[in-house]
Amino acid sequence: MRRIRLIISYDGTDYVGWQVQPNGVSVQELLEKALFELIGEQIRVEGSGRTDSGVHAKAQVAHFDTNARMAADKFAVAMNMHLPSDIRVLFSEECDPTFHARFSAKRKTYSYTVQLGAHADVFSRSTALHLHYKPDIEAMQTAAACVLGTHDFNAFKCSGSKLENTVRTVYRSEWIKDGKYLTYFVEGNGFLYNMVRILVGTMLEIGNGKRPVSDMQKAIESGNRSDAGATAPAHGLCLIRVLYPEFDTEEVLNRD
Amino acid sequence: MRRIRLIISYDGTDYVGWQVQPNGVSVQELLEKALFELIGEQIRVEGSGRTDSGVHAKAQVAHFDTNARMAADKFAVAMNMHLPSDIRVLFSEECDPTFHARFSAKRKTYSYTVQLGAHADVFSRSTALHLHYKPDIEAMQTAAACVLGTHDFNAFKCSGSKLENTVRTVYRSEWIKDGKYLTYFVEGNGFLYNMVRILVGTMLEIGNGKRPVSDMQKAIESGNRSDAGATAPAHGLCLIRVLYPEFDTEEVLNRD
Repeated sequence: MRRIRLIISYDGTDYVGWQVQPNGVSVQELLEKALFELIGEQIRVEGSGRTDSGVHAKAQVAHFDTNARMAADKFAVAMNMHLPSDIRVLFSEECDPTFHARFSAKRKTYSYTVQLGAHADVFSRSTALHLHYKPDIEAMQTAAACVLGTHDFNAFKCSGSKLENTVRTVYRSEWIKDGKYLTYFVEGNGFLYNMVRILVGTMLEIGNGKRPVSDMQKAIESGNRSDAGATAPAHGLCLIRVLYPEFDTEEVLNRD
Repeated sequence: MRRIRLIISYDGTDYVGWQVQPNGVSVQELLEKALFELIGEQIRVEGSGRTDSGVHAKAQVAHFDTNARMAADKFAVAMNMHLPSDIRVLFSEECDPTFHARFSAKRKTYSYTVQLGAHADVFSRSTALHLHYKPDIEAMQTAAACVLGTHDFNAFKCSGSKLENTVRTVYRSEWIKDGKYLTYFVEGNGFLYNMVRILVGTMLEIGNGKRPVSDMQKAIESGNRSDAGATAPAHGLCLIRVLYPEFDTEEVLNRD
């Protein structure tokens, strides 16, 4: 039995998310189907974490165990032949059997992209949230800085999610403007359910003048969901990096 | 009666092309339908030229005549309310009645994008042609330079297209690399049917080592379609600029 790890990219538009669900097609399910078609084994593919319906990934990590004798680095190309064009396995290799895509992950980075300008760009309509207004970027940047560090992010979790430890550490939290695109980058040791989308929703309301910039600090301190903003739409969100002690998707994807 | 001109952007993936066709939905048809829903007039919208099925536009130009009293600059937002999200009217204004989107056009610019790397990027799968090989960019650049100037481009037209003057002047013809994307930019006073896609197909065969770089010059001189390469797929192609004596889409879209 060998353990194989994968880096996977997907356009989440047409999926119910990463995880197998009864109500629609998931990325996990199609990866497992591709493996079944390829090597005839019913295999569970474990991801670094769920992504919601409509959320994208440039670098999701997953692992699975197999008895197949195929060279580990060939799985990427071979699986792609059994996958639709909106899911690509970008990398495959054998890893230590103690590696676990979810439990070994140390840090993840997400991006959330908004598009400025009078009209939505047709070419980014499924990967960026179009804003009809000119946001106050300086206020959003100030709010983003409050997120840095170790905090109880209880105010930034989906109200229906179950009890858990809601303390997380955020290592990067900033907006970067590139032409008409404004992208929020957030790196942390983990994220609560919907946390990034609620952080973004709060900052957009600050950028729109609906909330004072002090509301970000207030929500962090109070821990009340009602002090934070609305959950931003899924389609601007993208998982862009997962970091492990011995494995960094960014380093792997930047090779050659 | 007033004449209104538009700048339109579209993702051509789901369309039979610009022009109204019996076999599927066209961009022109949906613009005319949007105007009918908006002002109740059956109006012909004239474009700067056709784009094929699957070809995109960042800046197509069109005009129409109307009796409607709506402010000219409001047509963009109002039409967008009646259009699907893969078509956006980016700009509208009243113009001189002698302006004609097709006959007044002096120059057009197209881009053709290819994506390099082992695996196709899911986010550019409908706007860039993925190449499985590393092309010889220097050879492609040399071939691109042969295209510059005034030539008879008879070898670079669709073999079924009717007789016409096949002499065109090309003002820009170059490949530009940006990370994993390699984009061909070509500006000319006009293009024959399929000309850009056949130029690109020829350069890709040169870049792949299937043809010597001298084949570009040879095809230009012979005028034989069989001396040029295959027609490159539609989805890498995009109309990015149309220039008129008094109207430049690039200048308009770069305002503010």
